[in-house]
Amino acid sequence: MVTKNPDINKIMDYINGLSKHRDLTKEGVTRLLFDEYWISAQNWLEDQFKIAGLCTYYDDVGNLYGRFEGDSKNTIMTGSHVDTVISGGKYDGQYGIVAGLVAIEYLKSNFGKPKKSIEVVSMAEEEGSRFPFTFWGSKNIIGKVPEEEVGLLIDEKGVTFKEALKSAGFSFKNNIDTKTIDGFIELHIEQGGVLEIENKTIGIVEHIVGQKRYLVTLKGEANHAGTTPMKYRKDSIHCASRMVCMIMERARTFGEPIVATVGKLEIDPNTSNVVPGRVTFTLDIRHIDKNLMGRYIEEIMNEMKDMAREMKLDLKVEKYMNGDPVPMSSHLVRTIKGICEEKGIDFKMMHSGAGHDAQIMALKVPTALIFVPSHKGISHNPEEYTRIEDLGEGVKTLIETLYKLAYE
Amino acid sequence: MVTKNPDINKIMDYINGLSKHRDLTKEGVTRLLFDEYWISAQNWLEDQFKIAGLCTYYDDVGNLYGRFEGDSKNTIMTGSHVDTVISGGKYDGQYGIVAGLVAIEYLKSNFGKPKKSIEVVSMAEEEGSRFPFTFWGSKNIIGKVPEEEVGLLIDEKGVTFKEALKSAGFSFKNNIDTKTIDGFIELHIEQGGVLEIENKTIGIVEHIVGQKRYLVTLKGEANHAGTTPMKYRKDSIHCASRMVCMIMERARTFGEPIVATVGKLEIDPNTSNVVPGRVTFTLDIRHIDKNLMGRYIEEIMNEMKDMAREMKLDLKVEKYMNGDPVPMSSHLVRTIKGICEEKGIDFKMMHSGAGHDAQIMALKVPTALIFVPSHKGISHNPEEYTRIEDLGEGVKTLIETLYKLAYE
Repeated sequence: MVTKNPDINKIMDYINGLSKHRDLTKEGVTRLLFDEYWISAQNWLEDQFKIAGLCTYYDDVGNLYGRFEGDSKNTIMTGSHVDTVISGGKYDGQYGIVAGLVAIEYLKSNFGKPKKSIEVVSMAEEEGSRFPFTFWGSKNIIGKVPEEEVGLLIDEKGVTFKEALKSAGFSFKNNIDTKTIDGFIELHIEQGGVLEIENKTIGIVEHIVGQKRYLVTLKGEANHAGTTPMKYRKDSIHCASRMVCMIMERARTFGEPIVATVGKLEIDPNTSNVVPGRVTFTLDIRHIDKNLMGRYIEEIMNEMKDMAREMKLDLKVEKYMNGDPVPMSSHLVRTIKGICEEKGIDFKMMHSGAGHDAQIMALKVPTALIFVPSHKGISHNPEEYTRIEDLGEGVKTLIETLYKLAYE
Repeated sequence: MVTKNPDINKIMDYINGLSKHRDLTKEGVTRLLFDEYWISAQNWLEDQFKIAGLCTYYDDVGNLYGRFEGDSKNTIMTGSHVDTVISGGKYDGQYGIVAGLVAIEYLKSNFGKPKKSIEVVSMAEEEGSRFPFTFWGSKNIIGKVPEEEVGLLIDEKGVTFKEALKSAGFSFKNNIDTKTIDGFIELHIEQGGVLEIENKTIGIVEHIVGQKRYLVTLKGEANHAGTTPMKYRKDSIHCASRMVCMIMERARTFGEPIVATVGKLEIDPNTSNVVPGRVTFTLDIRHIDKNLMGRYIEEIMNEMKDMAREMKLDLKVEKYMNGDPVPMSSHLVRTIKGICEEKGIDFKMMHSGAGHDAQIMALKVPTALIFVPSHKGISHNPEEYTRIEDLGEGVKTLIETLYKLAYE
């Protein structure tokens, strides 16, 4: 049972310290897998872990750990990813690592050696911002990413993943895991506006959504805007617009938490005086329930086919992302809910609409994901902001959770 | 009264001869105002006019004339523009000039000197493809384009209009018109698919549509596609899609000949996993009746305002083209209709949905515009095609018309 509050100034000191390790030619925080800013950030974090009295080590692939040894080798792990998007904010990923460090320092100085070992992890990569591959860190913790899958991927400058990995002093995973992870707790900013709008401090995530993405192509006929009567047109933007309206209206009536987004749309030839011959648009659908998501998708795909047929356009739909929803550990969810109720923390049971390392960890390890509010829901942006009081409440919840899992 | 048919092979010979004067680095025919291909095309046409026994001259601004002197100085004029779009076809503009030449040759050899003089004009420019200015040729025939209006416009390479004009040997209009134009007849391809679909040979244009163009900007909120519930979104592509559907459906129920086109649409940030914060789209509306067009526009603008208000988006509408409909001379329309009826030509009374030199000439001179079919309505494209029989019927109709106006 924790009584004192954690030192919230320390959280901001660490976040600001870590944020210094960034590409200064870009706005916000930019730190890509294995680049010089990434290396100096990991080294700086290792120093902080050491100063806090933790035993530090890297694994083969670039994940950094700060370990507080307990009576048992069995480990409770917390942390997040150290890489950022290009021109990201100070909280995405960074907060989860810093919070883990502050939490362990607190537990160490107030309660001493735990029953189970506790580790904070600074995961090498989650965003996929340098190479077109995501979750390099967590995927290698719960398994092994084979060289064939990523070795030849190239970054913007033509450097291969393999070269970048080697030049930072790491390798593909060689060593076999010897520790048992009994639980993983990730603390993260919400990256959405729900907690702020609903005036809640903590979000307890029950599911991370599944994501399906499609590329939809509609082919009609490019025609002169003046000389083609309405009745003779095969107008691809009109058909696409009907589809967008239907997709959005259906998502609203289908009920929460489904979300459907048409985020990218391109028309050809894209000239004011030509009826567009071709439209392509992306469709991103997320839900926490695989079956319901499937039903929604089937419904809208049938409607889209009908619309294209009726308007005599060719329709092509290609799926390019196919992720299923991932539930968090119900035991951990209950534990954290109990803590919030006991401590009078204003929490909300929710889902995550964004992807997180927790969804990878959860495939092998009992996992929890805790959110703090994001101001206006802004993320992946230098404007990313969470109030320091909320950051503090997040760390407090994390401390309580780690205490329950490692000390009781 | 004309009895023999014109030599249709001659039409294609002239079209092919003229088409040789083009930028060979581009597909189709490309010949921009005052460029080297334009100069050689005008020179070649002048030679053909001379060979046909016409008196030739240029005006100050680059229009080329072939004159067949009649008993009176009063002139019946025919022709079209010699410039093309980039990668245009062989018929747009060119056909009208060639047809005028073939018609005058025919009349000259069969009927000799006319009562009124007849001129074929190869107008310098109509398309606005080199400089952002249209109808340079016809605007200078019926009036005077002042230097202030176009002198400093620049082309793609940074050459000013004034420099291009001078280097081709021309100037802004200096000389006062001395001739009286009693009528202008333009023969042109339809650039739409109506005549072909309805199996007609000749279109007699009663009106050239008015064109209004708008740039519509919708500003909502860019949000994360996963973390923003549907109810908290200000989705600009959803709102734009509702507007497009409404605009198109209203245009269909409003009745012909209104046409409404959303040809260009851009969304920001245009990323699959971000709810679009901003959409801009163009709206092109055309009608032959100014009042009806005004009513339609008022209706859709009101609906657009309602939609934006309801979805809490900012709406901005900017008008950037504001052309009124132009009627053709009802006397000439009746004359041509009479000819078609008498000669058993399968004609259609119609309007032009595209702009033509005729709409400028009509502001000062009794003007007619005659269409021949465009295969599949394709124009401004190397695929532009009209059957030779149809080209022949067009010339025949032109000959009959010129005969009535200049000989009777």
